[in-house]
Order: sequence, then structure tokens, then C-alpha cells
Amino acid sequence: MKYPVEQIRAFCEQVWTKAGLLPEDAKRCVDVLLAADLRGQRTHGTTHMKDYCTRMELGTATNGADIDIQQTSPSTLVVDAKHGVGMVVAAKVMERCIQQAKVSGACFASIHNGCHYGLGAYYPMMAVEHDMIAVSFANTPPLVAPFGGADPLLGTNPISVAIPAGKYPPLVMDIATSVVAKGAISLALKEGRSIPDNWALDKDGNPTTDAAAANVGALMPFGAHKGYAMELIGSLLSFALSGADMDTDIPRFFEQPDKLTNVGQFMGCIDISKFCPVEDFKARVDGMFDVLKACRPAAGSKGVMIPGEIEVNNTKVSLEEGIDLSEATLKDLKEMADTFGVPYTF
Amino acid sequence: MKYPVEQIRAFCEQVWTKAGLLPEDAKRCVDVLLAADLRGQRTHGTTHMKDYCTRMELGTATNGADIDIQQTSPSTLVVDAKHGVGMVVAAKVMERCIQQAKVSGACFASIHNGCHYGLGAYYPMMAVEHDMIAVSFANTPPLVAPFGGADPLLGTNPISVAIPAGKYPPLVMDIATSVVAKGAISLALKEGRSIPDNWALDKDGNPTTDAAAANVGALMPFGAHKGYAMELIGSLLSFALSGADMDTDIPRFFEQPDKLTNVGQFMGCIDISKFCPVEDFKARVDGMFDVLKACRPAAGSKGVMIPGEIEVNNTKVSLEEGIDLSEATLKDLKEMADTFGVPYTF
Repeated sequence: MKYPVEQIRAFCEQVWTKAGLLPEDAKRCVDVLLAADLRGQRTHGTTHMKDYCTRMELGTATNGADIDIQQTSPSTLVVDAKHGVGMVVAAKVMERCIQQAKVSGACFASIHNGCHYGLGAYYPMMAVEHDMIAVSFANTPPLVAPFGGADPLLGTNPISVAIPAGKYPPLVMDIATSVVAKGAISLALKEGRSIPDNWALDKDGNPTTDAAAANVGALMPFGAHKGYAMELIGSLLSFALSGADMDTDIPRFFEQPDKLTNVGQFMGCIDISKFCPVEDFKARVDGMFDVLKACRPAAGSKGVMIPGEIEVNNTKVSLEEGIDLSEATLKDLKEMADTFGVPYTF
Repeated sequence: MKYPVEQIRAFCEQVWTKAGLLPEDAKRCVDVLLAADLRGQRTHGTTHMKDYCTRMELGTATNGADIDIQQTSPSTLVVDAKHGVGMVVAAKVMERCIQQAKVSGACFASIHNGCHYGLGAYYPMMAVEHDMIAVSFANTPPLVAPFGGADPLLGTNPISVAIPAGKYPPLVMDIATSVVAKGAISLALKEGRSIPDNWALDKDGNPTTDAAAANVGALMPFGAHKGYAMELIGSLLSFALSGADMDTDIPRFFEQPDKLTNVGQFMGCIDISKFCPVEDFKARVDGMFDVLKACRPAAGSKGVMIPGEIEVNNTKVSLEEGIDLSEATLKDLKEMADTFGVPYTF
């Protein structure tokens, strides 16, 4: 059933505050989760509220109020996230990057002791509001085989990039570096479907169309050796700069809530105004998007989309029609209402 | 036939100097071309010496001696390349980025009025020598259809990244954002071979295995919508920040030597020492590479390679055995020897 965004927002802010976040951090945290739901990226939305709260109860996630941000040069920050809820930490860090990039032209932050930060695109999108180009990388538990290998040694290590436009919404790329998320395999398995042969390897390293075999095998990187390189770069930026755990040492965030995570993240932004007048930049981006949107569609396609366009359309619909909360999510919200003494409004 | 690297180097330096480059720029320029040949990336090597020289004769490329580099903030440079030979310009710009990143932690440069810069990976590899992580982007003539589109509107817009390691050679990613280069289609056509169905579209936007149909159609981006997003990001970073030409307005560099190019490039680096001790970083990268190299091979694979590993191996062989110069390249070199009054030594 669908519920108005503001109803969900108000409820979740209360829960997060009771769970221990500072009020302004609770607002931010809910905003990140709702952004995911609105954009149709439900796997990073309110469906995981309870998982984060469980970690806070168990002490494997903190409220992120005392994170340590050291500025080590005009354009670099080193952050100890102290296991703070990822959305709180990442938003604070990107705020600092934005502030500093206004001065120095660019600013990048390396985060260790991090935990799951939800919708990766949210943080670069914060910087877009300040006329910046921004990126965010994170490493994640090992699910993907390196190109040419049989074993899952790399995370799906998402890469998020946002670039402002003028009359168009910003370009927002938000990709896992595997062909598909692990969830797509689980879903095919549950529904008894076969899968395309470029999604996953079986446990012996053979490409497979059998979802059951894929489920105990390894995901494949997108774009063969090129996507593998991107995935590995995301990993190195995330853990090797920060001293966080290597992908192979990262526990599953939702499935193993009692395990402390030391995820690495790397994010930052560059200030467009240091390169050219912002309006000129935006006009040039619009010009490219005009060209792309006017392209003849390929066979079987409805036409060219700008990265992030589908999510902008989803957001419009969700804002009008509300966000669909599943029975499972509603059950979680009810439990949290009881646990934290917050009125249940659904 | 194969020739010692130093023999080719000495000859080419003389030619470039006679063609109008300053002696130190001639050295650099040859080093970039030879790096491509050594690495087995012959399409960016000495085979194109004459094409660059032709442009210099025609006045559509300059010697790059008077490029304008403006530092606009602690971490940003704006560069008018003044149509200088790309290898000369890009190396000078990356040198400035490295110098400045040592101070400010990061430095990025936006280049307009650029021309073809050969081996994109060369410039990030310069920064690796200074314990930096570096990137380089460029936009190029339109050969690739955007994902979902039928027309070639985007360049193959290469992305180059280099990351230092300790006991291993650095990670070097140097990719076109199409599945294959246009040259792979031409070669299949010449040899009467069919092509895989994910390389290109015919002129009506249908995937095709017919090299002739592909040759008048459009290349496809690597990794479907994900690679398309990367390709578009590369384009925007290159032209929209700098005010260079959009991909659709860029002439073919080698085929249309009389057309001035206003290519855009974007490059820069971050200083690892501002995030952590460099030795710690390198040990962590080595740790990841150890894990990857120990991976069981996938079916049909000889094992996992580190991005850039093949090129390092090629370089070792070429340094020992010499570089293979084709009849066509030798003919070019002979012509240049005559034109510039340089002793022909091959």
C-alpha cells in the first residue's frame, strides 16, 4: 500500500531520534532513505530502517555524532567514521568537502571504520546543489569474481557520480560494478527463472544460466575486464587509502548485524566555478543532453535516457502517489514503533 | 622487422625537433609514442608520427611551447592548449598537477583547444612516479551510439587511471568506453570476418554481426547503460568544463589533418601521502593484488590479471627484442627523414 512521503518521513524521524541519532542527523538519515524509495531504488530505502536500528542496539553502529574529520591539506580530509550510521557520516563528510572545495577548488575525503551508507548517489547529489561535480566510492562484501577468476573476491563496489545540468535534471550515475546485484539472482531463484549467461559464474567458475548454481557462485563484473578495472579501482580508493578492511574481510551488513564493519569510502567534489562560469558549463551540458534526447532510438528501445532520468521520473510519481511500503516493511515499522514508543501511523 | 628502442628514439627525437618541437618536448613526445609501442598499444605509437608532423606542417597542430596554464585555485588549472601537440601539452599539464597536488593534496586541470594526446595512460603514470593516484579523460570524434540510441553521437572517450603499488607494477586502466575500437571493425571487414553481436549497430540501430554493416553504423558502449554513463561523464568532464568542442563537432584527427581540433581533456591527481603513509597504502594494494593473483581461474581463463599487467609484460619483451615497425611505418619514417634532413637509420 502507498503512503504519503511526509507521513513516512515524520514517523521515521521520530524512530531514528529515539534510536539515538541527533535530531538533525535523524532528518538527514531519513532523507537519504526516502530519496532511495522515491527514486525507485527500494533496496536502499526504508526497508532497511530496522536493520540499522538493530545495529545501533547491538553497538555495531553508532549515532555518528563524534566522527573525527581531519583536514590534512587544502583538498584532503581523513575521516574516522567510528562506525557511525553511514548516511549520517557520509552526508557530514560531503558537506565538509563542498565547503572546502569552494575554497580550494576540489576536496576529497577518505573514510575508515565506515558502515553501509545507503544510496551512494545521495552524497554527490548534495554537491550538485552547490554547482559541483562529485563522486563517491565504497567497498562492500565479496560477491564478485575478478575478470578471469572463479572466486567472489571483490565487492559490488558501487560508483556514484553527479554532474549538474541547466534545464535538465543533473546526470546521476549510481552503479554497482557487477552486471546485476546479488538480489537479482536471489529473486530469479525464488521465482524459478533462469538467468542470462553474463550475470554469474557457478562455484567452479563456469558461466551459468541456473540461478541456484549462480547463487553459490560469484557475480560477474559489468563490462568484462573494463568493469573489473573500475570495480578494483573503487575498492583501492575505498580501503587502501583509508586503511579500512579489504572487500574479502567485510561482513554482510544486514545479514550479520553483530559484526562490526570497517568499510572504506572515498568521496569528493570539484567546484565548477573554478574552471568556467557555471552557467556556461550548464548550457554545454544541456546542449549535449539535447543531442542525446534527439537521437533516433535503437531497435527495441524507446530512446536515449540521461543517467538518472528514470529515477527523476520515479521520484515525480512517488511524490504524487506516495511510497509503496511492503507488508514486511510495515511489520518492521510497527515493531520499531513499539520498541521506541513512537505512535504507529500506518 | 624489429628495431632497438633506442635507435627509434634517437631518430624520432631528431625528426620532432626538426619539425619544430623544443628539444625537451621532442624527448617527451617520443617517450609517449614509444611507451605505447612498448606496451603493445601500437595504434598510439610511432605509426602516427607522420600524421602529427603533417598537422604541424599544415598549422593545425603547434609545437605546444606557448600553452597557457592558469592556476585558478589551489587545486585547479585552466589550460589553453593552443592546438599544441597533445603529448607535449598533456605531459606539461600533468607535471603542474603533480607539483600542485604536493602542496594542496589534489589538483585537476581542464584543457581546451587540445589535440590528440596519444597514450592516455602515460599522464596518470607520470603521477604514479610521485606516489599519486591520477586520472585522465578526453573526448573524441563521434563513433559510439548512446545506450538506447541508433546514431554515433559520442566519442570512444578514453578513461585512464593509474594507482601505485609496492612490489607489483602500478594498476593502469586505459580503456575506450566503447566495447572495441573502430579499428577492430575495420580489421574484421578487411579480413572478411563477422563480429560479435555486442560490438556495433547497423545504420538503423540493430545489433549486427556484419562488419560491413557495423562499419557504417555505430559502435556500442561497453557494459550497456553503465559504460554509456561512464562515456558521457568522460565527455562532459572533457568538453563542458573546458568549453572545448562537443564530441559531435570533433574532426577525425588522422583522417582530416587540415581541420583544427578543439578537443577537451580533463586530468589530475591526488597525493596519497595526504591520506596515509605511502608505504601503508602500497602494502594494502599489494595485499589486494596477492589475493587476486591467487584466485582460481574461471573456465577458459589463465587466471586473473591486474589492469596493466599485460602491458608491463609486453614492455619487457619489447625492450629485449625491439619494437616491430611495419613497412608502412618505415615508409613514413623514410619520408620524414627526407623532409627534415635527418639521417635514415633503419
